[in-house]
Amino acid sequence: MTVLMPYPELLSLVTRIFVDRGVPGDRAAIAATALCHGDLTGVTSHGLVNLTRLYLPLLDDGRADPAADMVIQTDLGACVLADARRTLGLWSASQAMELACARASRYGIGMVSLRGATHIGCAGHHAARAVTHGMIGLVASNCGGQRIAPPPGGAATMLGTNPLALACPAGDAHPFVLDMSTTVVPTGRVRAAAREGRAIPPGWLATDDGAPVTDAAAFDRGGAHLLWLGGDPETGAYKGFGLGLLVEVLGALVPGAALGALSADGNRDDDIGVLTLAIAPELLRGGFAADATALFAAVRGWPARDAAVPVVYPGWHEGERAARFRAHGVPVPDEVYAELHGVRERAAG
Amino acid sequence: MTVLMPYPELLSLVTRIFVDRGVPGDRAAIAATALCHGDLTGVTSHGLVNLTRLYLPLLDDGRADPAADMVIQTDLGACVLADARRTLGLWSASQAMELACARASRYGIGMVSLRGATHIGCAGHHAARAVTHGMIGLVASNCGGQRIAPPPGGAATMLGTNPLALACPAGDAHPFVLDMSTTVVPTGRVRAAAREGRAIPPGWLATDDGAPVTDAAAFDRGGAHLLWLGGDPETGAYKGFGLGLLVEVLGALVPGAALGALSADGNRDDDIGVLTLAIAPELLRGGFAADATALFAAVRGWPARDAAVPVVYPGWHEGERAARFRAHGVPVPDEVYAELHGVRERAAG
Repeated sequence: MTVLMPYPELLSLVTRIFVDRGVPGDRAAIAATALCHGDLTGVTSHGLVNLTRLYLPLLDDGRADPAADMVIQTDLGACVLADARRTLGLWSASQAMELACARASRYGIGMVSLRGATHIGCAGHHAARAVTHGMIGLVASNCGGQRIAPPPGGAATMLGTNPLALACPAGDAHPFVLDMSTTVVPTGRVRAAAREGRAIPPGWLATDDGAPVTDAAAFDRGGAHLLWLGGDPETGAYKGFGLGLLVEVLGALVPGAALGALSADGNRDDDIGVLTLAIAPELLRGGFAADATALFAAVRGWPARDAAVPVVYPGWHEGERAARFRAHGVPVPDEVYAELHGVRERAAG
Repeated sequence: MTVLMPYPELLSLVTRIFVDRGVPGDRAAIAATALCHGDLTGVTSHGLVNLTRLYLPLLDDGRADPAADMVIQTDLGACVLADARRTLGLWSASQAMELACARASRYGIGMVSLRGATHIGCAGHHAARAVTHGMIGLVASNCGGQRIAPPPGGAATMLGTNPLALACPAGDAHPFVLDMSTTVVPTGRVRAAAREGRAIPPGWLATDDGAPVTDAAAFDRGGAHLLWLGGDPETGAYKGFGLGLLVEVLGALVPGAALGALSADGNRDDDIGVLTLAIAPELLRGGFAADATALFAAVRGWPARDAAVPVVYPGWHEGERAARFRAHGVPVPDEVYAELHGVRERAAG
């Protein structure tokens, strides 16, 4: 059912596939790392499965540009506005975060705001780049003009699943990496269930009248819509929707990217907006790194209701999987393995 | 049941009560505005009811200092770390946001991070100060060392309700103000229901075994704990918990305030950490204000499932109530009115 691929071999294969499409080599390697991050951490809904379904079609249709340069439009030192010019979001979001970290190393805080981006993959991967600099990284990305979920009480979809991610160092332990859609789940998890014919739990999808839907395939048939984190209005739907708007504001309104509520057709995730923010806490006070280590060690050591199921923080399980898969190989489903090699051979042939 | 008090009279009464406790006049007026914001916007759980239950006891017990000066510990220009030195959080959080806006007007972004703060009241009120400068304001505050909700799967409480707020201009319309606890509801809403003997919906509280609890009084009896936004693990509990940790990191770990997971007794919300962040988007690009106006007008005009219940964004209802109450008086429950006057007369006598 799955092939175990050595991680360097997988990275190199995906890098070559991007290079075959005209992406410069250093950029292709960064994009491949972002794409493989999904499978490396077990978040397969945001990994290799999207190569032939999302990223290569973007390049083939000209909606993504393999080799354009990002253009800085405003530079205020601690914050920068740039046009990503349809480059691969898998690359541009990482570049933006690296630039944010460089600015944070001077100002304590650095913000790089992108317009004109394409799909960035796992937001948490880009946020976690800050951790390698001992910094906190925050990423918020809208879905361009694409409308996926309706507002509470609304009769039509308005916003995307609008991911939000925060990463923070935890000493030698796996970093804290919160990486969440502001809907209950991202579309990728619904589609993965639909592909596998699995029923989904009540609370992910609902009909227009609010009835729960457990048939994952109903989503792409148009028979159900995604719920906001919080579920019903009395258990916090307005918070989930509000977080979706928070991402729309920080990620897309600030740089002037496309907005779901104002786009012409609501179908395309072109002109995505991305916020990357880095904070360099050790510049503010000594002792941050030690306190962060102590905080996340305390979380991991917290008394559990079931001793067999220890308390964890977001990012822990992903870090464990990545360590295991780096050592023993990354599981790649047979059909995805065949897709990767098929793409590569067609390009080489 | 309620007295309608003219807003200026209410403000002036609360200001005098703080002045009677030794708070300097200009500071008392700012704190009174923050406290009255709850009742002015209909968020009564975070308003005047807390004066005799929370803020005056803090001052009387010496846990809050009426007249200390905040001390800036690190100043990097775009970001500042300050010790609030137990001053009233109702005041210090607004001061921090004003300083963040001043820095954002120079650098595009401004962050002021507080340690040593006391309870700030409505986080959204402080965030909305940025809107008066045409800016976006973000506030995150932990609950000091106080532990209120357990992590998913945890056998003991770990973090506070850790509020997060974002405010954004919407032209002449009421600003977008998301003001949320990262638990399903804040403790104030549970206690308000308990005081009124109202049952609460399933999904707010649960027993240690996860069974829903609808008796609000069970919370302070220790028979139930607050759930994280998202509810169950399969509908997003790890996102709510992750957002609680996000606030803990940004609000308290950055400045070195008390942390729920590391505090000695877990009972006291002393040494609260507060993040205030301002973004000045018009410095990054012209046209932000017009786009923000168009975005929130589109949300308000969105097709509704029930024409009698228009689509709104967070902050809209609060803005409507504030406009009405400014014009016609702020409803104050009889017993709170009696409390205010009792406190004032004891001080004067």
